Amino acid sequence: MTSGEPKVAFSAGLTDSGSVGPFDEETTLIFSKSITNIGRAYDRTSGVFTAPVRGLYFFSFTAADYLKGYMGVYLYRNNQPIVFNLALNDHGGYASTSNGVALQLEEGDGVRLSLPASYRLYDDSRNFTVFSGFLLFPL
Amino acid sequence: MTSGEPKVAFSAGLTDSGSVGPFDEETTLIFSKSITNIGRAYDRTSGVFTAPVRGLYFFSFTAADYLKGYMGVYLYRNNQPIVFNLALNDHGGYASTSNGVALQLEEGDGVRLSLPASYRLYDDSRNFTVFSGFLLFPL
Amino acid sequence: MTSGEPKVAFSAGLTDSGSVGPFDEETTLIFSKSITNIGRAYDRTSGVFTAPVRGLYFFSFTAADYLKGYMGVYLYRNNQPIVFNLALNDHGGYASTSNGVALQLEEGDGVRLSLPASYRLYDDSRNFTVFSGFLLFPL
Repeated sequence: MTSGEPKVAFSAGLTDSGSVGPFDEETTLIFSKSITNIGRAYDRTSGVFTAPVRGLYFFSFTAADYLKGYMGVYLYRNNQPIVFNLALNDHGGYASTSNGVALQLEEGDGVRLSLPASYRLYDDSRNFTVFSGFLLFPL
Repeated sequence: MTSGEPKVAFSAGLTDSGSVGPFDEETTLIFSKSITNIGRAYDRTSGVFTAPVRGLYFFSFTAADYLKGYMGVYLYRNNQPIVFNLALNDHGGYASTSNGVALQLEEGDGVRLSLPASYRLYDDSRNFTVFSGFLLFPL
Repeated sequence: MTSGEPKVAFSAGLTDSGSVGPFDEETTLIFSKSITNIGRAYDRTSGVFTAPVRGLYFFSFTAADYLKGYMGVYLYRNNQPIVFNLALNDHGGYASTSNGVALQLEEGDGVRLSLPASYRLYDDSRNFTVFSGFLLFPL
């Protein structure tokens, strides 16, 4: 990476407050705890990462819960779902589901995670549920 | 990354058709849905990523299923298994297993995922089962 | 990445010997099998990755087990826990939990995985339990 290229990378934890959801409607997840945010492309008040330049980005996430029921997330590029992770927690103990994806984004494109209606996630100060991304190269 | 360096990154979803496997023999998984394919190093007809240059690459995958039984994948460099992910789905609800690995490849080396005999995976248009990789730097 | 920049990436498997833990106290995990170690920043005798330069690094891991009970790991930057992955294996079949995180490190900072007291992991020659990381860009 040359010095003239933008440096963009973030990781954020979901919440210190315990459960998120279930909600009646699908809801964008707002990862409010900044672990890393080089380039300030991730907005922890909206939950949206906005591409500062056209390029190839890599995103990863882990979603956790500890109660019986469905947990899962969609990863969206703008309003298009790209990948879906879903897990049935049938035992009521901690569990998680993870994924990663390489995406070509135009400048201004937004990437976010979304919780399906009736699903639930968990996080606390230990950072169980984490959303990360970085610019690999401009295009 | 300087402008003279190759730009290589891909993500692919497994299938829109539901279950893959079980097969009588271990079988290379053909991720037929291209999500991203910068540099065209991933071939979605063979399922093989072929390194265009000697370098350090990072790969990640998530394998999902929703029926009782074993799911899992081997990640191969040429004919050498590098990592193995295995999960027993004992409850018959959605579950997944994920991994990532940094690999040094020679030009022409192939990387692919393989389904063990008698195992099963699931995918549909929502992209549950995903294979990704990118060139981090040439060597 | 220009030729003057350091090239740093590693992946390591935990052990060929089967179970690790449970221990009476939280214990740093020593991933003793080198899969990749460009730049020699990961020490497979101590289990610690030491940042050779100030920069942005990405780490990922998958932790597996196949017996009933709790499995999980903390990822530490020096003595600060950054993320925690925890899973209850209630059925006694193979299961895993994964995560990834982008971290800004100062030169000399150490990153490692740690097993909580009374938890257990499993690995063998197939590489179920894997720790990886790379330098994305210097800062």
